[in-house]
Amino acid sequence: MSENTKFVLSEDEMPKEWYNINPDMPVNPAETAWNAVLHPGTKEPVTPEFLSALFPMRFIGEAVSMDRWIEIPEPVREIYRLWRPSPLYRARRLEKALDTPAHIYYKYEGVSPVGSHKPNTAVVQAFYAKEEGTLGFTTETGAGQWGCALAMACKFFELECHVYMVKVSYEQKPYRRVMMQNYGANIHPSPSDITNFGQQILADDPNSPGSLGIAISEAVEAAVASQGKLKYALGSVLGPVLMHQTVVGLETIKQFDLAGEYPDVVIGCIGGGSNFSGFAFPFLHQNFTNNTETRVLAAEPMSCPTLTKGEYTFDFGDSAGMAPIVKMHTLGHNFVPAGIHAGGLRYHGMAPHVSALYDNGNIEAVALPQLSTFAAGRQFAQAEGIVPAPETTHAVKAAIDEAIKCKEEGTSRVITFNLCGHAHFDLSAYDDYLQGALHDHEYPEEEIKDAMQHLPEVSL
Amino acid sequence: MSENTKFVLSEDEMPKEWYNINPDMPVNPAETAWNAVLHPGTKEPVTPEFLSALFPMRFIGEAVSMDRWIEIPEPVREIYRLWRPSPLYRARRLEKALDTPAHIYYKYEGVSPVGSHKPNTAVVQAFYAKEEGTLGFTTETGAGQWGCALAMACKFFELECHVYMVKVSYEQKPYRRVMMQNYGANIHPSPSDITNFGQQILADDPNSPGSLGIAISEAVEAAVASQGKLKYALGSVLGPVLMHQTVVGLETIKQFDLAGEYPDVVIGCIGGGSNFSGFAFPFLHQNFTNNTETRVLAAEPMSCPTLTKGEYTFDFGDSAGMAPIVKMHTLGHNFVPAGIHAGGLRYHGMAPHVSALYDNGNIEAVALPQLSTFAAGRQFAQAEGIVPAPETTHAVKAAIDEAIKCKEEGTSRVITFNLCGHAHFDLSAYDDYLQGALHDHEYPEEEIKDAMQHLPEVSL
Repeated sequence: MSENTKFVLSEDEMPKEWYNINPDMPVNPAETAWNAVLHPGTKEPVTPEFLSALFPMRFIGEAVSMDRWIEIPEPVREIYRLWRPSPLYRARRLEKALDTPAHIYYKYEGVSPVGSHKPNTAVVQAFYAKEEGTLGFTTETGAGQWGCALAMACKFFELECHVYMVKVSYEQKPYRRVMMQNYGANIHPSPSDITNFGQQILADDPNSPGSLGIAISEAVEAAVASQGKLKYALGSVLGPVLMHQTVVGLETIKQFDLAGEYPDVVIGCIGGGSNFSGFAFPFLHQNFTNNTETRVLAAEPMSCPTLTKGEYTFDFGDSAGMAPIVKMHTLGHNFVPAGIHAGGLRYHGMAPHVSALYDNGNIEAVALPQLSTFAAGRQFAQAEGIVPAPETTHAVKAAIDEAIKCKEEGTSRVITFNLCGHAHFDLSAYDDYLQGALHDHEYPEEEIKDAMQHLPEVSL
Repeated sequence: MSENTKFVLSEDEMPKEWYNINPDMPVNPAETAWNAVLHPGTKEPVTPEFLSALFPMRFIGEAVSMDRWIEIPEPVREIYRLWRPSPLYRARRLEKALDTPAHIYYKYEGVSPVGSHKPNTAVVQAFYAKEEGTLGFTTETGAGQWGCALAMACKFFELECHVYMVKVSYEQKPYRRVMMQNYGANIHPSPSDITNFGQQILADDPNSPGSLGIAISEAVEAAVASQGKLKYALGSVLGPVLMHQTVVGLETIKQFDLAGEYPDVVIGCIGGGSNFSGFAFPFLHQNFTNNTETRVLAAEPMSCPTLTKGEYTFDFGDSAGMAPIVKMHTLGHNFVPAGIHAGGLRYHGMAPHVSALYDNGNIEAVALPQLSTFAAGRQFAQAEGIVPAPETTHAVKAAIDEAIKCKEEGTSRVITFNLCGHAHFDLSAYDDYLQGALHDHEYPEEEIKDAMQHLPEVSL
């Protein structure tokens, strides 16, 4: 076992292939590939024409591929090298603070220029679009984490980037907007007056603060209206996006070789599923093929408990009911989670792959109250220096809980989590926490029950 | 020559000693050590009692040491390992964008948890204080870069941290305040009502926005009044602080070995001098002892052109005339630079070591207008991803200018600069730049002439 604090790979050791979990899924592939994606209007499987108006062809192909390993194109690897391989840390100072026999390791994705794991897929989607002659992308963003990643990726490939940013975030959280504009992206506060849907919303309410659902609809409409000039980029949920993120977990496995250990518990925070999947799927692959028995744990917010309390059924991908329908764990597409600071985890649904694996018992999940996650984030920062993003604090809290369990049981286990982003753009959330202005939300039982009354009727 | 994008050292390769330039200084050591530090009242060399009320003994000892290499204590190295060794990058994408035959390398200190080089000395000062039984530190901070570094270092050694933060920054730039509070520091908006000096200022003007000069005076008063319980920590200017930062340049030299090249030009932005010195002094050591002829270039703001336009003479270290007097390049201690966004470079004076080296012709300096530095920062971000802090953009601009010169001359040179911090907490500055709200300031000739009328009379 190495005495190091960090385990660092050379650029040559960066994975050359992503891990595609499709062939290893314990369910009928139809449940996770495009043929289980239903058109929101016809409720029939989506057509290739529908998909190709939105996504690059190579991206569409990845979704149905049954190849276990898919090559990472060299132009993508060239850009990955700007921050990858990212370091794996042994949290020695946190272990000491917890007085635990557990060994805690964290992978740090905050080293990317925009401070999160999101560029791992943004760069790929931009490369595919460029390769296919597309001029650029439309997308939506809430607080701006995904928008920043796509804006940077588009600039690297000299593509246009049109970001529909929820208006209330545009006005109240200017830092990520500035970051995107600095990369040359066009930012439209949503609802905007440049799409039909935006105009409709504004006609009803000129002061609409916007929502992620509205922004998605605007971005999709703008891509379709461009007649092939622009495509639509999504930062989570879809199979290829999860796969692009597996570079994270694949690096981590190599780094555990350097550390001379192997994890007993692998933890990621979860919203749409891409951060969790990218970190955890390579470990599941080891479980499937190498007889390891690593526990894989998803940490979600108590106020949006999609895995732990949701139903595994067909629902719309967006809250407006305009996006495709997929089979997933859902709280009902018109369930509106409480306004917690972990904005990236406020999604009513879940990536279909993750849902199927959870349903099959391959992964576990835990739902955590907000205050406990900020307390964990602060404890982590005081021990290790890095201040974790509000989303990430869910993984931190789950890891600390596992480490305390080790202490109580008197057993030493190896615990690892993905520190998928820092809090440099979210410090107002910590300010609220430190000033006692945050509170926990009760489990929204009634709201979820109501929302579940409005699932789409599907005959599949 | 390596094809890599990054050059990364293992933890074992992290320097075990700092480089102390004292024995290699081309001037009488009296001009840079404590015996050239004069008491602001008596104008006589400061006494050991005066110094020991403010600084840890081991820190005082470093200032007068003539040992060329000083061991980095293991507890400091343990904490350095949380982010060190930091990466050296070849800016291949920027070279391409500039179409230059030059090779551009940047060292990236933004990987520290607080996003700058400042913890390299904060951790050392905290360790020395802990070792000597001190309870904690007082310090001042403007925008909060230094305050964050000291707050983190104090928490790591379980020391109290009392930061006097310029009130206008406390109110307008809450993010770094939150960061410090999250590490457990006590933040006092300055002027405060807990020091005599603060009370005086408030009596005259209850709405005083504060200044760095006032905050320094409050922090020094609070340290002295604590009767040894608290010491005072300074983040730049003093010899030991410059030395602690040499870990940056020493790593860089090892990384150039990996790259298979050696720099012709070494560039750092300069305010008080610690970032510049930490990066450049190890290269000067090579010039002194190994007959290299590397050009060493300091990049300062046109509106605070301390090296290029200042006089090399005795002046107060602070603007209030309450701090000790040292021989340095100065624009006059009551010169108030224009309110540029590179707050860390708005200092009327200069580290005595840097001043002596500049006076002797060992280093060069260039003064840059604000708009050109933001343009360079944006160009860098669009090529390399990382958004440089407003201070750092001065080094970026100087490096780009050198690279363009190479193109014009048709020669290939190796250029390196220290990317000493990212702009995550300074994005409002980029917002102003992108919105066209920034302008350049003319060289403040009259203001400097006026300020130079008020130098202290010194008989040395």
